Amino acid sequence: MDTIRVTVWGEYRHEKKNPVVANIYPHGMHATIADALRRENGITAATATLDEPEHGLSDAVLANTDVLTWWGHIAHDEVRDEIVHKVQKRVLDGMGLVVLHSGHFSKIFKTLMGTTCDLKWREADERERLWVVEPGHPIAAGLGECIELPQEEMYGERFDIPQPETLVFLSWFQGGEVFRSGCCYTRGKGRIFYFRPGHETYPTYHHPDIQRVIANAVRWAAQPATPPVQFGWTKPREESLPYTVPEWLKAK
Amino acid sequence: MDTIRVTVWGEYRHEKKNPVVANIYPHGMHATIADALRRENGITAATATLDEPEHGLSDAVLANTDVLTWWGHIAHDEVRDEIVHKVQKRVLDGMGLVVLHSGHFSKIFKTLMGTTCDLKWREADERERLWVVEPGHPIAAGLGECIELPQEEMYGERFDIPQPETLVFLSWFQGGEVFRSGCCYTRGKGRIFYFRPGHETYPTYHHPDIQRVIANAVRWAAQPATPPVQFGWTKPREESLPYTVPEWLKAK
Amino acid sequence: MDTIRVTVWGEYRHEKKNPVVANIYPHGMHATIADALRRENGITAATATLDEPEHGLSDAVLANTDVLTWWGHIAHDEVRDEIVHKVQKRVLDGMGLVVLHSGHFSKIFKTLMGTTCDLKWREADERERLWVVEPGHPIAAGLGECIELPQEEMYGERFDIPQPETLVFLSWFQGGEVFRSGCCYTRGKGRIFYFRPGHETYPTYHHPDIQRVIANAVRWAAQPATPPVQFGWTKPREESLPYTVPEWLKAK
Amino acid sequence: MDTIRVTVWGEYRHEKKNPVVANIYPHGMHATIADALRRENGITAATATLDEPEHGLSDAVLANTDVLTWWGHIAHDEVRDEIVHKVQKRVLDGMGLVVLHSGHFSKIFKTLMGTTCDLKWREADERERLWVVEPGHPIAAGLGECIELPQEEMYGERFDIPQPETLVFLSWFQGGEVFRSGCCYTRGKGRIFYFRPGHETYPTYHHPDIQRVIANAVRWAAQPATPPVQFGWTKPREESLPYTVPEWLKAK
Repeated sequence: MDTIRVTVWGEYRHEKKNPVVANIYPHGMHATIADALRRENGITAATATLDEPEHGLSDAVLANTDVLTWWGHIAHDEVRDEIVHKVQKRVLDGMGLVVLHSGHFSKIFKTLMGTTCDLKWREADERERLWVVEPGHPIAAGLGECIELPQEEMYGERFDIPQPETLVFLSWFQGGEVFRSGCCYTRGKGRIFYFRPGHETYPTYHHPDIQRVIANAVRWAAQPATPPVQFGWTKPREESLPYTVPEWLKAK
Repeated sequence: MDTIRVTVWGEYRHEKKNPVVANIYPHGMHATIADALRRENGITAATATLDEPEHGLSDAVLANTDVLTWWGHIAHDEVRDEIVHKVQKRVLDGMGLVVLHSGHFSKIFKTLMGTTCDLKWREADERERLWVVEPGHPIAAGLGECIELPQEEMYGERFDIPQPETLVFLSWFQGGEVFRSGCCYTRGKGRIFYFRPGHETYPTYHHPDIQRVIANAVRWAAQPATPPVQFGWTKPREESLPYTVPEWLKAK
Repeated sequence: MDTIRVTVWGEYRHEKKNPVVANIYPHGMHATIADALRRENGITAATATLDEPEHGLSDAVLANTDVLTWWGHIAHDEVRDEIVHKVQKRVLDGMGLVVLHSGHFSKIFKTLMGTTCDLKWREADERERLWVVEPGHPIAAGLGECIELPQEEMYGERFDIPQPETLVFLSWFQGGEVFRSGCCYTRGKGRIFYFRPGHETYPTYHHPDIQRVIANAVRWAAQPATPPVQFGWTKPREESLPYTVPEWLKAK
Repeated sequence: MDTIRVTVWGEYRHEKKNPVVANIYPHGMHATIADALRRENGITAATATLDEPEHGLSDAVLANTDVLTWWGHIAHDEVRDEIVHKVQKRVLDGMGLVVLHSGHFSKIFKTLMGTTCDLKWREADERERLWVVEPGHPIAAGLGECIELPQEEMYGERFDIPQPETLVFLSWFQGGEVFRSGCCYTRGKGRIFYFRPGHETYPTYHHPDIQRVIANAVRWAAQPATPPVQFGWTKPREESLPYTVPEWLKAK
């Protein structure tokens, strides 16, 4: 792919209500994430937010998005089901999806996983350390053996997800918990990456390693468009077969 | 577990409309499947069908079901969403689920997989041969190296499912296609097995090897009840941590 | 299976040299592990140690072992290659294998994994907490949400193993590291479980939860004997094929 | 990576002994494979063969190889163990490996898999059809829904390998068997792809789709060099820990 077209989706509510968050992310977390992506070669980034028409995810936007990143928290329920279904369809058709932090409870992630995606949590200004468990994986490229975050919200196991196809990061928390923090999936032709860090009251998305992981994940999840997969009734490949076309199909 | 309590769910429509099907399964496919399970040690089997109240799946029935088997085809849309959600919840809580043949398009399977579960198909009286690819797996216990079915409907790849955690069977079809025919998943605490064969116009569920696989799958999917997993806010395990209980939680 | 026959293999060197270890395990770690298994219904346990003839693993012993557990540390190199090959062959043929703690560097584990199985480590009397990440898995049956060990050796990621088929436990360490502590594999027809805890200077194998996990792992890994898999030259299943028997095969 | 440096390894014996093979591959199968790779942008390809010194795989060659492809058949035993160990070490350190056809029985593949890698086979001029089961995978890029090979050797299940991390292709054979034909693995930091077709008496490696898959696999397996992973003794990350440096380590 010559250029990867990313749409950075943000709920964009905390930033407008909570001065602590607004101070860290004056233009929204999505703006910080998009700006970081724009500094990468071969990536363009647009943004979309909940309160825009169609949540900023019109058919045209989705059709021209190679990878969508998703951050939501307090307004998951306000995301309209028909938009969720369109996003799911695009993922199954090959669009990448990078789900961030509290996006674990988004409709789109739960729909694609089939589970509750529930977990333990605690806000206590804890240190988080994300260990790289697959150092050869492209999403870990350019990192050291771990990422240190001085303060983050804690997420703890059991995390109710299907077991990841590849587990890239594991988090250690000061308060005694662990978490599968970087999880790869394929659904349909689309690649999905869940990445844990990013509570709104910490400057996590300004951290260069976190920006590195998101950019790496975008590159990993981006795929060139491919022809639609053929499903449904099909003639036999082997000609000798004495098959019969079903009656109802003949009538069509 | 002393006894595994199975509920065999059948759509039970083809059998009432199509004399070919009625001739093979006079009391319904579900009755044939349940009868075979009842011949197993340590398994009890009840049945439930679409046209019963709550599709035969009341809260009490679900609460007393260790493993649910599911066959549906022409009336997937008639299965009510609230029943589907209850079944999903029970699976995530540990109930086993064995999805048979055209059940690939059932609401419950699609909900748990997160994908379209679409595939290629053809009705042409073809020979199917299911090869055992994991001979050490308990679902393959007691089988030879393959199962031969003289006539079946063809299902062909691409089968749009998440990649199985374990692939037990692969099908060969006379007309030239292949299919991942025996697929294991875990969702929440529940185990799910998809098993391909079983088109209504063939006596597939009378075949001893097919009955063996379904009984094996029931044993594999059955699990003793375990305490609910704890999710949500949690105190730190390590006592030295300077955490603060969130304001809104204090108020509760 | 009516009865699962376990052979508990112990290197049995630390116990004879180090009074700290001898005090905790006067008859060897293998004796403590075997005693705990003998208290389980349907399990019998024998022991075998490095300094016995054939390391206690004669053909007869291996043929009558359903599950082998393995603890070694300072004398991995003294395990003879021909015994390793016999154990590998038995695992591929269906014998279960439970590899404990420093057994990660045993010849048999490295041979079956194909990787270095290297890791980080530290002896610092640290607290370890093993979190259950798959609460529905039979190896986690009967446990709470985590196992607390007041003092253990630390093992940290990167752990150089093939990614587990199922990851059951994740360890948190006081000093800041995490580790994939309970890892399931299938190799051939055999099931393998790697379980991290058990440094010789701590009473870990006296801990009831650790004993529970080992017993659960033994039940999970045990499988009834099955006929050998057929490999090599094979006639076509489909009779119409104009195949030719290879010349060299005709001559046999 | 600017350029991917491939070494195409060939046993190069059949081509010198069997006129049928020599006619199809006058300069060896490795030459045909390398020529096809050289037509790709951003790939350079050298060759190496069994009868060269060090089998053409000196330390310098391995150090400058990003991806190694491997075809061997009648002389697996002649590959020297020390070369196998060097190749294994390079794979674990990040070199890609593409194992072709009868390479399933090579020392390097068996060493990395830990299993026998045995299978069923038959030479009967059969039609093979490789179905794409993961149409979104980069190794399937540019292909239709299947690859048709008019004549090939049959390989049939059970194929005694660890279950693939991703299964990209499934083969159908005219004589009635199926096979997992395109299998992805990670070992250490290295990526491994096994690809089934390529019996020496058929022009398989001249087929454009087969060449496409090998080039795709090379791109998928190629990874930029990364710093070595740190293993062994490590200080605690959390400073408060009352750890003690082991005595024997102090002495160093």
